Amino acid sequence: MNDVICTVDTVLLTLADDGLAVALLKREREPYKGVAALPGGYIHTDKDRHGFDAALRVLKTKTGIDVPYLEQLAAFSGAARDPRGWSVSLAYYALVPHAVIAAAGHPGVKLVGVDRLPTLPFDHATIVAAAVERLRSKSQYSSLPCFLVGELFTLPQLQRVYEALMGEPLNKVSFRRKMAELDVLEAAEGHMDASSPSRPAQLYRLRPQFRDRLGLLKRGL
Amino acid sequence: MNDVICTVDTVLLTLADDGLAVALLKREREPYKGVAALPGGYIHTDKDRHGFDAALRVLKTKTGIDVPYLEQLAAFSGAARDPRGWSVSLAYYALVPHAVIAAAGHPGVKLVGVDRLPTLPFDHATIVAAAVERLRSKSQYSSLPCFLVGELFTLPQLQRVYEALMGEPLNKVSFRRKMAELDVLEAAEGHMDASSPSRPAQLYRLRPQFRDRLGLLKRGL
Repeated sequence: MNDVICTVDTVLLTLADDGLAVALLKREREPYKGVAALPGGYIHTDKDRHGFDAALRVLKTKTGIDVPYLEQLAAFSGAARDPRGWSVSLAYYALVPHAVIAAAGHPGVKLVGVDRLPTLPFDHATIVAAAVERLRSKSQYSSLPCFLVGELFTLPQLQRVYEALMGEPLNKVSFRRKMAELDVLEAAEGHMDASSPSRPAQLYRLRPQFRDRLGLLKRGL
Repeated sequence: MNDVICTVDTVLLTLADDGLAVALLKREREPYKGVAALPGGYIHTDKDRHGFDAALRVLKTKTGIDVPYLEQLAAFSGAARDPRGWSVSLAYYALVPHAVIAAAGHPGVKLVGVDRLPTLPFDHATIVAAAVERLRSKSQYSSLPCFLVGELFTLPQLQRVYEALMGEPLNKVSFRRKMAELDVLEAAEGHMDASSPSRPAQLYRLRPQFRDRLGLLKRGL
């Protein structure tokens, strides 16, 4: 046995009006009591089967949200990152639509644009930056952005999410071809988006088998 | 503090005659004493600055090799993976040319083809599979395979390494265009490969700034 502090930290990302945002929570105890930080906590060796379980538990307990998709980001470790001693944080990231966070309405959860972060404790700024980079990079060749868009969406809405994450406009025809190749969407029969009454648009949703895992492209968008 | 066992495990990969191989080492103590496993060990909180340091130390101590390039693979964690108790293993992978392992000549290090692995203890089979998948996937858009090829190499030799990892033949012209785009190679002035005396080929090496980090393509091979 070696005395290493083992925690999980979670990066809960969503799209707010002005771009990508992360959920922060004021720390309830020392160190950094009262400071906004990533939702995190100790691994409970009596309850958690593995780190993934621990991250789900922390998110549920601290933000009230059951996330449909969660992925390990990386481990952050070392002697200097936590004043309590040598520590390992297993970092996970999750994506949810903004409405899910609003509906959970958990007191204390604050969404902050990833480009306007306050000074974060520990190495949480590094962890957020790594999660944003992973999300941007994976958006190029996977269905990951679909987890940000809500249950029902039009293809133009989905394209705008991809564009927001990738930071560049995408060609509509090639975007639709790539979505067809990904093969993760299904038309929601009987559901049309009536926000433009002259030309109602078909609504789509994720096929059941892709609601908790990714579809991947062989070659990127 | 929570009683979690914290270790590092290392996946040292190389290309042997018949494909990708991993370095295994007989375990010196229980559990699984005498069984071939990934080189690994406890984190030494008094010596290691972080997990990366610990992995470098384990590789140097147990295989005699200073690896030029090492990357975190993932953390493997849980109650069931180690009979001693709830554990976290920070897994790292490294790539070296076969000649480097041969030159180190460390007793006990055995190279085994990744397709012909014996039953490995803990979740080491899962860790090796994840490393191989990462290497194959990253070969499509990075200079990662260059770490397998030795200090000086011809472009046809490098192409064969990429092809071995990606499992498919590559077009010579587009391979050379992608290598030019990666911009990680330099001609080794005055060094020609004389193995084919009628048509000696230019030898290349990694530019100094890419000998311990990756070059990345915007779009894959």
